[in-house]
Amino acid sequence: MSKNIKIRLFSATPLSADIEWLPNDAQSHYLLNVLRLKIGDEIKVFDGQNGEYVGKIVSLSKKNCTVKILQKVRDMKYCPDLWLLFAPVKKDKTDFIIAGATELGVSKIIPTLTKRTITERIKTERYEAQVIEACEQCRRLDVPQISDPQSLEKILETWSQDRILYFMDETGNGGDIQTVFKNASTAKAAILVGPEGGFSDEELQLLRQKNFAKAVSLGERILRAETAVHAALSCWQAICGDWK
Amino acid sequence: MSKNIKIRLFSATPLSADIEWLPNDAQSHYLLNVLRLKIGDEIKVFDGQNGEYVGKIVSLSKKNCTVKILQKVRDMKYCPDLWLLFAPVKKDKTDFIIAGATELGVSKIIPTLTKRTITERIKTERYEAQVIEACEQCRRLDVPQISDPQSLEKILETWSQDRILYFMDETGNGGDIQTVFKNASTAKAAILVGPEGGFSDEELQLLRQKNFAKAVSLGERILRAETAVHAALSCWQAICGDWK
Repeated sequence: MSKNIKIRLFSATPLSADIEWLPNDAQSHYLLNVLRLKIGDEIKVFDGQNGEYVGKIVSLSKKNCTVKILQKVRDMKYCPDLWLLFAPVKKDKTDFIIAGATELGVSKIIPTLTKRTITERIKTERYEAQVIEACEQCRRLDVPQISDPQSLEKILETWSQDRILYFMDETGNGGDIQTVFKNASTAKAAILVGPEGGFSDEELQLLRQKNFAKAVSLGERILRAETAVHAALSCWQAICGDWK
Repeated sequence: MSKNIKIRLFSATPLSADIEWLPNDAQSHYLLNVLRLKIGDEIKVFDGQNGEYVGKIVSLSKKNCTVKILQKVRDMKYCPDLWLLFAPVKKDKTDFIIAGATELGVSKIIPTLTKRTITERIKTERYEAQVIEACEQCRRLDVPQISDPQSLEKILETWSQDRILYFMDETGNGGDIQTVFKNASTAKAAILVGPEGGFSDEELQLLRQKNFAKAVSLGERILRAETAVHAALSCWQAICGDWK
């Protein structure tokens, strides 16, 4: 029966059977005023650390409600250790990148400042809200972490050698994506997609000097940033990740 | 030198060296009022059938200009024989699907009416304009064809047996995408992505009866339609298509 419950909300506090959970104001508004749920109606709740539970509305006021957490219905499971480094673009395109990356199972998202990144548009609180909404919809159990924006230079300086950094190379000098991903030597990976206009020559030179960085080509057509992010993450999940 | 020309326009009429080409009103507006080009400035033009040419503005008025076509700079090349069948969704999401599919190299796009497709939003003229814009930006030489909307039932009835139809199956009963694509027995392929809410049980049953149709799983997370389109097309290009 729990399979038929479509409503799925994130709890910022840890869950366990028999506790009472208080949805936040936005969630309560959604449950009570949008969906018009009543006492006795059931929803699903996940907390990003203990799994997914069925809960039942046991009391409500005009603005808030209390949900009694019943049994656990899915054990906790984490997505593969795949990071996304992307150069923020226009708002609606960044929205697609963040939601898509969450659905495509990244564990961490790092807004990356490159020479041509448009920096005034980086709002990590907004990204965090989008990530949670995407987790609720796509049935993920864990929530990807959003890092503060960092410069590409700084990221490369402090990079851990045991994580491969695949960067999408528009110059035609990258390996074909299937071959490069198949030859992955570590389970930890990161995908780096540059800004509109691409990486600068200096950035490409810097990347090519790092032995943890692998250049990947996505064919001859020039992909927009949001398409390239979806493309690279999908191929990684198909070849190295949890779609296998 | 032609490599540095970034402006790239589509000609609806065939091109050849030495002819004069007249941009349409929107293109002229873009060249003269947005980019403020002058006589002697060079652009690239492609016609979807003969390749790509350099052209030079040789005369202009307030509203229009004439472009003299100079030499051919890229020979004609077609994308692989890959179709996309998708159930139209909300406007901004459909925009991402159409532009992404063009960049990801589909040869034909068929808006597909399923039980849960929202049909009032299908505007094929709009799709055609978006496809051309995406071709101009991604440097494609051919232009994908947009079909009139068709019902899934009708499409399946008249399907040619020599084209595999991969349908994205959210029920968990599909094969993993890498294995299914690797075992492709024909070069002609089509990707079918269902509407929000998925295929109906009857549609799934119908698809499973067809020996040209292969069910594909994109993992346990539920992808939105636009993410699923990008994901399936990318994996196909990586494994069977022109990213190899």
